[in-house]
Amino acid sequence: METAFFNGKFIPKSEINISPDDRGFLFADGIYEVVRWYEGFFYDMPGHITRLKRSLRELRINWNDADLFESIATDLIKQNQLENKPAMVYLQVTRGAASRTHQFPSPEVNPTIYAYAWGFAPDTISKDSGIKVMLKEDIRWSRCDIKSIALLANTLSFQEAHENGMKESVFVRNGLITEGSRSNVFFVIDGTLFTHPESNYVLSGITRKNVLRIAQEAGISIREEGVLENRIRFIKEAFITNTSAEVTPVIDIGGNTIGDGVPGPVTKLIREKFEAEIRILKNGEIL
Amino acid sequence: METAFFNGKFIPKSEINISPDDRGFLFADGIYEVVRWYEGFFYDMPGHITRLKRSLRELRINWNDADLFESIATDLIKQNQLENKPAMVYLQVTRGAASRTHQFPSPEVNPTIYAYAWGFAPDTISKDSGIKVMLKEDIRWSRCDIKSIALLANTLSFQEAHENGMKESVFVRNGLITEGSRSNVFFVIDGTLFTHPESNYVLSGITRKNVLRIAQEAGISIREEGVLENRIRFIKEAFITNTSAEVTPVIDIGGNTIGDGVPGPVTKLIREKFEAEIRILKNGEIL
Repeated sequence: METAFFNGKFIPKSEINISPDDRGFLFADGIYEVVRWYEGFFYDMPGHITRLKRSLRELRINWNDADLFESIATDLIKQNQLENKPAMVYLQVTRGAASRTHQFPSPEVNPTIYAYAWGFAPDTISKDSGIKVMLKEDIRWSRCDIKSIALLANTLSFQEAHENGMKESVFVRNGLITEGSRSNVFFVIDGTLFTHPESNYVLSGITRKNVLRIAQEAGISIREEGVLENRIRFIKEAFITNTSAEVTPVIDIGGNTIGDGVPGPVTKLIREKFEAEIRILKNGEIL
Repeated sequence: METAFFNGKFIPKSEINISPDDRGFLFADGIYEVVRWYEGFFYDMPGHITRLKRSLRELRINWNDADLFESIATDLIKQNQLENKPAMVYLQVTRGAASRTHQFPSPEVNPTIYAYAWGFAPDTISKDSGIKVMLKEDIRWSRCDIKSIALLANTLSFQEAHENGMKESVFVRNGLITEGSRSNVFFVIDGTLFTHPESNYVLSGITRKNVLRIAQEAGISIREEGVLENRIRFIKEAFITNTSAEVTPVIDIGGNTIGDGVPGPVTKLIREKFEAEIRILKNGEIL
């Protein structure tokens, strides 16, 4: 039986009932986080909690217990016997249930808090061989920095890539490559690592942030700048990052083979260093 | 007891339980319609059904019973004793409940169908006196033509107007006034009626369409063109349209008094003709 968390209680997931008045259901008026469990610890939980609080603040959803995310997540891992497996915890917070009006409920209602955990098999084939990605005009809103549940554009774009045998849809806005539908994206051009800067057009990925740190520590030249779509032919390496894909090489962008069509040396180095950190953390050491 | 419709059944609204796996709750992966009941008939139900089918088609949600909307809505009006009251029916269709992945569920799952009705008091004060609206940069996605439940940007924008004592937030994109957070918007400049053309930046409102027809029949000069924000000083009259506001005059846009600060003659004429049609329809006549 799968145990989930709902409004303060751990209950069977099958018993969770969302109200049809929930503003998450009616308006996408909510935010979420996904954190990775590495058989013993959560990867950068403080980073996730900081971002969670920022998302709540940006939407003015008052959930004062955001610091409880770590204990909720830990309990979900334990209650679902996931301690020794690769697992994920999903948390969603909506503005709560109230009669449908565009304005916020007045008086304020309690936010809806929902979280669950699941074990998964990491996609090592993609990490070893690299993936193909699609290029798509970015049709999303202009507050992509908020990790909101208004993900319709993301799902439509990802589905299109999926149907074309590709593992991610990478967005172009105003000619610049921004990020993927569920990942950040990095490029190596002339030995320099490029990724779109933090802005309202990209989500500040936790893995993105840590990869930038790792690259800096490795002495790799970094430029937080968007890459123009028309410069794809200059891209020698590419990879995506997110909580589940970690560092996953990209070998083809929209039909353009990247480099030699295999994961490149900078990508491999960053992936190795990322995974080395995970091993250190698994041994209970602090970075 | 409020009766609602859920996945084929009429049941008490309080008994409706949305799954936490519903893609409407997780991804805003769904669409909606709102239709107005005028104490005896629905306003332009065929228009709503046509748009409903288009929204479903654009998202590739397979609900083959969209034509049932009229009978569902009629039953909701009857079962909730709303026959002789101004009322609304809300219908929402999501892609259904499935394990959370960005791609569409495979195999396909049944869509979630939810509808309910409520009586309301039309806001005649706003229609008589006119309303003030806010101007806001349009932060929404670029498929505003789909009546999706991904309404977070709309609610945030409307809330901002509401907190500033205004009754709508009107969007500007690339310098052009597009539409409101929950309405279409019309302007009178030099005796000509302007509204943004149908495009991916506006919803094709049912009231918008009928107002254009009414204006044409009244011999009013019409231009379906966006008005530049920097031309506000040339606007002599303005009004918004939607299913509940019908034709509601706008007397102030972002602090700029429109015309003499009272509903203008073209607006009043269109409102009168709109309401005359409603009276004719109430008498059981066909337009």
